[in-house]
Amino acid sequence: MLDKVKVAVLGASGYSGIELLKLLLRHPHAELVAVTSRTLAGKALSAEFPRFRKVGVADTLTFTNPDVATLKESGAQIAFLALPHGVSVEYAKPLLEAGIKVIDLSADFRLRSAEVYKEFYAHEHPAPELLDEAVYALPEVRAEEIKKARLIACPGCYPTSILLPLIPLLKAGLLTEDPLAVSSMSGASGAGRNASIPLLFCEIQNSLRSYSVPQHRHLSEVGQELEIAAGRPVRLSFVPHLVPVFAGICTTIFATPKPGVTIEQVEAVLNNAYADQTFIRLLGKNQSPDTKHVMGTNFVDIGWAMDTRAGRLILMSAEDNIGKGASSQAVQNMNLVCGFDPAAGLLSV
Amino acid sequence: MLDKVKVAVLGASGYSGIELLKLLLRHPHAELVAVTSRTLAGKALSAEFPRFRKVGVADTLTFTNPDVATLKESGAQIAFLALPHGVSVEYAKPLLEAGIKVIDLSADFRLRSAEVYKEFYAHEHPAPELLDEAVYALPEVRAEEIKKARLIACPGCYPTSILLPLIPLLKAGLLTEDPLAVSSMSGASGAGRNASIPLLFCEIQNSLRSYSVPQHRHLSEVGQELEIAAGRPVRLSFVPHLVPVFAGICTTIFATPKPGVTIEQVEAVLNNAYADQTFIRLLGKNQSPDTKHVMGTNFVDIGWAMDTRAGRLILMSAEDNIGKGASSQAVQNMNLVCGFDPAAGLLSV
Amino acid sequence: MLDKVKVAVLGASGYSGIELLKLLLRHPHAELVAVTSRTLAGKALSAEFPRFRKVGVADTLTFTNPDVATLKESGAQIAFLALPHGVSVEYAKPLLEAGIKVIDLSADFRLRSAEVYKEFYAHEHPAPELLDEAVYALPEVRAEEIKKARLIACPGCYPTSILLPLIPLLKAGLLTEDPLAVSSMSGASGAGRNASIPLLFCEIQNSLRSYSVPQHRHLSEVGQELEIAAGRPVRLSFVPHLVPVFAGICTTIFATPKPGVTIEQVEAVLNNAYADQTFIRLLGKNQSPDTKHVMGTNFVDIGWAMDTRAGRLILMSAEDNIGKGASSQAVQNMNLVCGFDPAAGLLSV
Amino acid sequence: MLDKVKVAVLGASGYSGIELLKLLLRHPHAELVAVTSRTLAGKALSAEFPRFRKVGVADTLTFTNPDVATLKESGAQIAFLALPHGVSVEYAKPLLEAGIKVIDLSADFRLRSAEVYKEFYAHEHPAPELLDEAVYALPEVRAEEIKKARLIACPGCYPTSILLPLIPLLKAGLLTEDPLAVSSMSGASGAGRNASIPLLFCEIQNSLRSYSVPQHRHLSEVGQELEIAAGRPVRLSFVPHLVPVFAGICTTIFATPKPGVTIEQVEAVLNNAYADQTFIRLLGKNQSPDTKHVMGTNFVDIGWAMDTRAGRLILMSAEDNIGKGASSQAVQNMNLVCGFDPAAGLLSV
Repeated sequence: MLDKVKVAVLGASGYSGIELLKLLLRHPHAELVAVTSRTLAGKALSAEFPRFRKVGVADTLTFTNPDVATLKESGAQIAFLALPHGVSVEYAKPLLEAGIKVIDLSADFRLRSAEVYKEFYAHEHPAPELLDEAVYALPEVRAEEIKKARLIACPGCYPTSILLPLIPLLKAGLLTEDPLAVSSMSGASGAGRNASIPLLFCEIQNSLRSYSVPQHRHLSEVGQELEIAAGRPVRLSFVPHLVPVFAGICTTIFATPKPGVTIEQVEAVLNNAYADQTFIRLLGKNQSPDTKHVMGTNFVDIGWAMDTRAGRLILMSAEDNIGKGASSQAVQNMNLVCGFDPAAGLLSV
Repeated sequence: MLDKVKVAVLGASGYSGIELLKLLLRHPHAELVAVTSRTLAGKALSAEFPRFRKVGVADTLTFTNPDVATLKESGAQIAFLALPHGVSVEYAKPLLEAGIKVIDLSADFRLRSAEVYKEFYAHEHPAPELLDEAVYALPEVRAEEIKKARLIACPGCYPTSILLPLIPLLKAGLLTEDPLAVSSMSGASGAGRNASIPLLFCEIQNSLRSYSVPQHRHLSEVGQELEIAAGRPVRLSFVPHLVPVFAGICTTIFATPKPGVTIEQVEAVLNNAYADQTFIRLLGKNQSPDTKHVMGTNFVDIGWAMDTRAGRLILMSAEDNIGKGASSQAVQNMNLVCGFDPAAGLLSV
Repeated sequence: MLDKVKVAVLGASGYSGIELLKLLLRHPHAELVAVTSRTLAGKALSAEFPRFRKVGVADTLTFTNPDVATLKESGAQIAFLALPHGVSVEYAKPLLEAGIKVIDLSADFRLRSAEVYKEFYAHEHPAPELLDEAVYALPEVRAEEIKKARLIACPGCYPTSILLPLIPLLKAGLLTEDPLAVSSMSGASGAGRNASIPLLFCEIQNSLRSYSVPQHRHLSEVGQELEIAAGRPVRLSFVPHLVPVFAGICTTIFATPKPGVTIEQVEAVLNNAYADQTFIRLLGKNQSPDTKHVMGTNFVDIGWAMDTRAGRLILMSAEDNIGKGASSQAVQNMNLVCGFDPAAGLLSV
Repeated sequence: MLDKVKVAVLGASGYSGIELLKLLLRHPHAELVAVTSRTLAGKALSAEFPRFRKVGVADTLTFTNPDVATLKESGAQIAFLALPHGVSVEYAKPLLEAGIKVIDLSADFRLRSAEVYKEFYAHEHPAPELLDEAVYALPEVRAEEIKKARLIACPGCYPTSILLPLIPLLKAGLLTEDPLAVSSMSGASGAGRNASIPLLFCEIQNSLRSYSVPQHRHLSEVGQELEIAAGRPVRLSFVPHLVPVFAGICTTIFATPKPGVTIEQVEAVLNNAYADQTFIRLLGKNQSPDTKHVMGTNFVDIGWAMDTRAGRLILMSAEDNIGKGASSQAVQNMNLVCGFDPAAGLLSV
């Protein structure tokens, strides 16, 4: 086992990238050797992001171009790609060829099927030959594969919050084939650090709204993973909402339990799946998770309730969209890939 | 027709009460003659709520006790009850006996059935004899009854946002008997102006969470009204969420259309029901309403989408929970009761 | 006196422009005949700003180019310029030549001196010949001149909050020549509706910071007007701060009273100046104004305190920066220019 | 030197107390052995504050009464008092007698003079005999005394932000005796976790206001410490403001430099005082600090500007009011008392 691993962060100037830097700086086994940004190349990290002034090694880092030769030279053994969708794929192949493992936070390698990719992303996948190798890296579900992978596709923020409550119940066969209905709320950091009118403070601070209805891109990966869990196609409607917080995802799922299934069975299945998982916290029956308790952490909090009047099972989850929904989950995957303690660097609150 | 009506607001110190005062002060046909508050009796309105200083008659008003004799003496012809649930009922009967019409914003007279009331509110209804007379006053649905009523039960904030999109579709028979799934988000004013830790700025500003799962009280009135529209019992699951805005409700509904029903049919039914309704704005297919466009108004904005992959119809609505969800809807009802222009005093943006 | 005046709003797509539209739509004597936006020309107002759907005339308006011939044709008698600094000046002259009175919300005509303009705005004034004619239009101070003007320069948002508390005290000779210290906080709408990273929700929601230190442009007009009031040059330091609210300005002024001046004298002078002014509310000794009580209104709330330990007079004011600090003050000026009731259309709360 | 120190937190249910728990849990040399709360005694920490579920030792802690015998039994060597003013003093004496060192976050031991205490806190100091022993523990100014102390009085949140920029300049004799003017903004956590109407989300989210004008209690400790630095009495006016953020203090100071003092001299003095201080970040001339860069840290960011027009020096600082303004400064003091690395446990960002 490595004692230290040298890591690079590509796309370090976005909200997920900055969160990754914070996590890696406090990680006991990670050494940050390179940060890249095409727009900020040549500038000091701490000049652009004053939070990092006087913060150890962070104060000495300068943004470089995401050049594979340079990254190789830096000694990086693992590259985190906090790049936009469609950009990660350009870097993944040369990085892998240079012997650098890739932990990708974009959507580029999440789907097993190039056809589904095309349907949801509206163009051909640029490197379909890598899709087989990539692992859809939800650590609570696929730890063994992640440990052996060199191309890690971190799940999307919404999918993480949707899959974790549902997978054990589908595996256990507790739900009917009725379509699932999923409503999520997300903070604005999920939309990225891009100059645009709809993301202005004055446009968001007083606004509650859904978007991408009826077909958000994350449906594709959720459908893929739920089908694997259920052993059959799983239909779901998904409506995401933008709300005025910096970060946090709160997801509410309406599912149809098979006749006779009790809330105690649901609870037993979830307990069985997650009692030993460090980062899943099961709240109990009729308990609503609250994003404020998971902000800045790698936890997902899960509650459940049986609506006997309507014959529906309600599942509720909360996570930090740039934590467990992106950057801390990426670090959790790094821990698996490198054989570190799975919780290394991730238990600060 | 009256040219002016004298009105009193009972419970004028809460968020709905204050909003009522603002609306009534600008109303061309209303004269505010009394404001009551048990805790603030004897104090000047503008001393407690400095917003009203130098604002015409508002600057001269003093809170009184909600004493029916005093109200009668003030000349009030209509009393708005912005009182807590369970308190309105104490005042409604003596007010009616004194010949003062009652527009109640609480839940006390919304249900037709004292049994359902008991099931959801956990105690016997204190004045079941009034339930038959009270009108569940959704003006877009029940204008003619409202015009003749003397006891007006204004719909709850969530129910208004849920009922308006659904009622025409249920009446038209476009939906199956599948349970509906409803997810709503509300600003904190919906929880009232009460000193409690969970309502502190520091507890809410960073928090997204559901509550009252699986059985919020508003389910009772929603169920009642949907059943009337559909001509059969209608099952639904409802999950409300608290989000960090002052006001605004954003509701997302997952419904199952009958086989063959198209989105064009849905649109036609909504258009038919609401094209002539001043305060319903139909946004179009795949258009998400945004609470910021309805804040401070009496509008409900409605969008719709067909999720053909999952076989679900998605309905979306936005309103101001203390506007159309409470106070401006109450004024809309006053306009009907008094025979004023239905939009009088309600079209400022 | 006119019963109705036809008005145009140039630059109607910014936060001040939109606020102007709201105010003019509810104004009893204004008829909105044109709205312009170079970027949105040809588009329906209510398509771009859904708040205006189904709102009377607003629902029928289409953005045009700010073309003087077109505006003349529309019948506009008054043009509000809610344009960026440096752009208003391009339109003012041709509008005046076409016989249309101009109420300008930009800084282009606020200074009497082209030299001071150059010092603070870093380029020559493009139309210095108009500076003499323009009136610095603080209605509580200069109503008679405003009534006769055809080129109205509305004061800046910060200056309005600084000048109103200070002018009477300087006129009365209560303050020494010691430099004044002024600290203000403003909501983000003051920075305009421009796509830029620093104005994103995620950049502002958790941020408190000063800016433009030590020389904000508004110092120039504040200095000009204080000098007129005092009859001598007045020195002041001014530090503005950006805080995470949509709108509101809260200003705190530290002044040095002449020896022997009492807080009662201060109060008497303010009372004398403003007791009859509809939109100035004097709160009393040691009373802090709160922006929430003035939001959406044309009021300025003013408090004062004597810090006898340090020998300083503390003056405090609150206003809505896009209300009294911009758009409602512009409407107040229109009322004066047209001979309407000075409060017409401005007393809604 | 100790490798580990056993610590207790009294008053662990307020915002500063919770922040202390987070910091101590990640501290390499601290072992949390007791948390107290009179209102929550007997309840599990993680039941009341779900953030701490599954977080190592935090998940096993139960609130106890702040009973000295119990604390002694727990093995606590240091007690942090995150108690209200006037309550800390009840516990400090018995704790010291039991041999437990006290790090107090309240105002109870900050003043050297019982008379000044009485003037500002309106009652006799309950334990004046301890005032001589207590150290006003600003680590950047008084590290050597702190190392030897057993009763540590942590500075107030506002004072920390005011004293750090001013002390070096007063020591260096760069400022005249003119009164200072200080304007600060603070997030709502500074007001504590108390159920009261003015602290509700709905009352604060849209509000900017000053308070405690003209004599906030923190003036007493600021005056005391500035006098020590200057070697003469120092007069200052101070106006705090409440703004809608969870945490953060942004302070702006207007000072009068002696004739001929240049901004370069100011910069040199600050550099000389703080270049080696881990937690002071000097931003440079005309640079405004931003609270968002210090949130969750122990840093104070400082900027400065010379307003030559008005003859004023402007000093600007930003800190996290529950970080460097309270809890992380308390941990910084613990590091000094115990001989740990002064930055131990405090450099996460």
